[in-house]
Amino acid sequence: MELSTIYAPIQEDLVKVENELESVSKVGFSWLAELLNYSLSNSGKGIRPALTLLSGKFYHYNLDTILPMATAVEVLHIATLVHDDAIDKSSVRRGKPTLYKLWGEDKAVLLGDYLFAKAGELTATTQNLRAIKLFAQTLRTISTGELAQTFTAFNLEQTYEQYIQRISHKTAALFVLATESGGALSEAPEQSIKILNEYGYNLGIAFQIVDDILDFVGTEKELGKPVGSDLIQGTLTLPAMLLLERFPKDNPVREIFQNGDKDKNIKLAIELVRNSSIVEDCYRIASDYCAKACRNLNLLPDNASRQALKDLADYVVSRKR
Amino acid sequence: MELSTIYAPIQEDLVKVENELESVSKVGFSWLAELLNYSLSNSGKGIRPALTLLSGKFYHYNLDTILPMATAVEVLHIATLVHDDAIDKSSVRRGKPTLYKLWGEDKAVLLGDYLFAKAGELTATTQNLRAIKLFAQTLRTISTGELAQTFTAFNLEQTYEQYIQRISHKTAALFVLATESGGALSEAPEQSIKILNEYGYNLGIAFQIVDDILDFVGTEKELGKPVGSDLIQGTLTLPAMLLLERFPKDNPVREIFQNGDKDKNIKLAIELVRNSSIVEDCYRIASDYCAKACRNLNLLPDNASRQALKDLADYVVSRKR
Repeated sequence: MELSTIYAPIQEDLVKVENELESVSKVGFSWLAELLNYSLSNSGKGIRPALTLLSGKFYHYNLDTILPMATAVEVLHIATLVHDDAIDKSSVRRGKPTLYKLWGEDKAVLLGDYLFAKAGELTATTQNLRAIKLFAQTLRTISTGELAQTFTAFNLEQTYEQYIQRISHKTAALFVLATESGGALSEAPEQSIKILNEYGYNLGIAFQIVDDILDFVGTEKELGKPVGSDLIQGTLTLPAMLLLERFPKDNPVREIFQNGDKDKNIKLAIELVRNSSIVEDCYRIASDYCAKACRNLNLLPDNASRQALKDLADYVVSRKR
Repeated sequence: MELSTIYAPIQEDLVKVENELESVSKVGFSWLAELLNYSLSNSGKGIRPALTLLSGKFYHYNLDTILPMATAVEVLHIATLVHDDAIDKSSVRRGKPTLYKLWGEDKAVLLGDYLFAKAGELTATTQNLRAIKLFAQTLRTISTGELAQTFTAFNLEQTYEQYIQRISHKTAALFVLATESGGALSEAPEQSIKILNEYGYNLGIAFQIVDDILDFVGTEKELGKPVGSDLIQGTLTLPAMLLLERFPKDNPVREIFQNGDKDKNIKLAIELVRNSSIVEDCYRIASDYCAKACRNLNLLPDNASRQALKDLADYVVSRKR
């Protein structure tokens, strides 16, 4: 199913989120407006703001608070990408040169800071203390996950549990912010907020596992960045962990992490993953998380948004980019 | 007057702020605890948290909210320093190697993000929406000021007004957060909050002007970093602007900004500033801002904290580091 079909119940308000994002760029300093416009207009799939809007649809949907919150979630996401690219020295994202590449590290760091602040301001306009606290906690959790990633880079001794913890911090936390804030802002009962929280967490884990699979099986065009980026950065993802496990001798991941020939071994690693059951196994794990995400959704009121959340879970494991 | 004397009305609670800072480092991941401990324990003069505490002393002083706010202000300050050092590639701060120097750029960027988030969380615990909004606005203003500084680096064509605007963003905004939040959290009347806001703004400008003077007239030991750092970074400060104005020909600032011999010209610039009336003139401007800071303080209730705010203004223009 296409995302545009899944988004039907909130399509109109997603356009409003885009307009809000555009208006973030409208600032007095032209040099700042240019940076903001560049970073905010290279839009992705809009999954995170869509999750906030959909999660807000079960009780008292109030656009005055849900719109700034959905925008805040997307701005926070973009801010983390801007910092990630600076840290990883990535040249390309979503098929376009990164802000880091065009303007340099100092601008990328400071613009990321600016966007964190802007996201915080947008969240504050909801006047909802729960959403505000969750926002700040989420930023801290994401930073912890990203720090964990830099501290474990090129480390071959990582467990599956550490991997899940790391991606729960760096990815699932933001999905939880998206869904839980939607619930809280619509005055959902505690039990429903818990269901939305679990949905966000498990969907986020599944989303990241699929991201990590696509880094092996996607094409540069689909990914909008080079294939095998994780290996180049020394990030041990699930497919790489399984590869290490199954080919204990002469393993290309080990070679890459221990300063062997990068190009040759990345090609080899990608080939081995593609020609093994690793892809399938990883997708099975991702699907399990999607199933967990959806298992209590039926306890929410029955409406088009509930179906959309289910369809989104299917989309997450079938997407190609 | 010594800072410890000025701080007398809030000395006990400043110690509590230090304890709060220590407890921020107490996290489960040892690698994170080490980074946090390193960045949070290299403490400065504590002026910003002191301002929050002192500003909270005129009406309903409530330690439950004022303590996390004062801590948040200091954590935010430290976060900006961690990012600044990464951006400027500074090796030394307060006489110790910077986090950037010891752990590298990626850790510095992510730890700064973590600290921003932590400061946000601390602010959120006050449950005061005004303080929360002001916090987010302040982070955005500081980022704007820092961005302005990178965009104008090595640019000789800057006006006095642009300089004041830049330092109002990068420095005075945080002083305003410190004083205004103290007022708001103590339920000060609007008129008093305005007086505290003006005090913070003008004191912050004075503080930064003195910082910029000390970069020329201080010693490396007093500053805890090399003398002339601003010139090396291409930051045009007030003393440098006056130097450009008074020596239009063969100016060492112009030489530095236009890729001339750095070492020779920095020495020359420092010598020229020290042997001219520039230092005195800059101090006069800083003193004028301090006078503005204090001009309405007498409209606040008369207590030891009011005197402390006045003494702090004197301290700001007499300090050597």
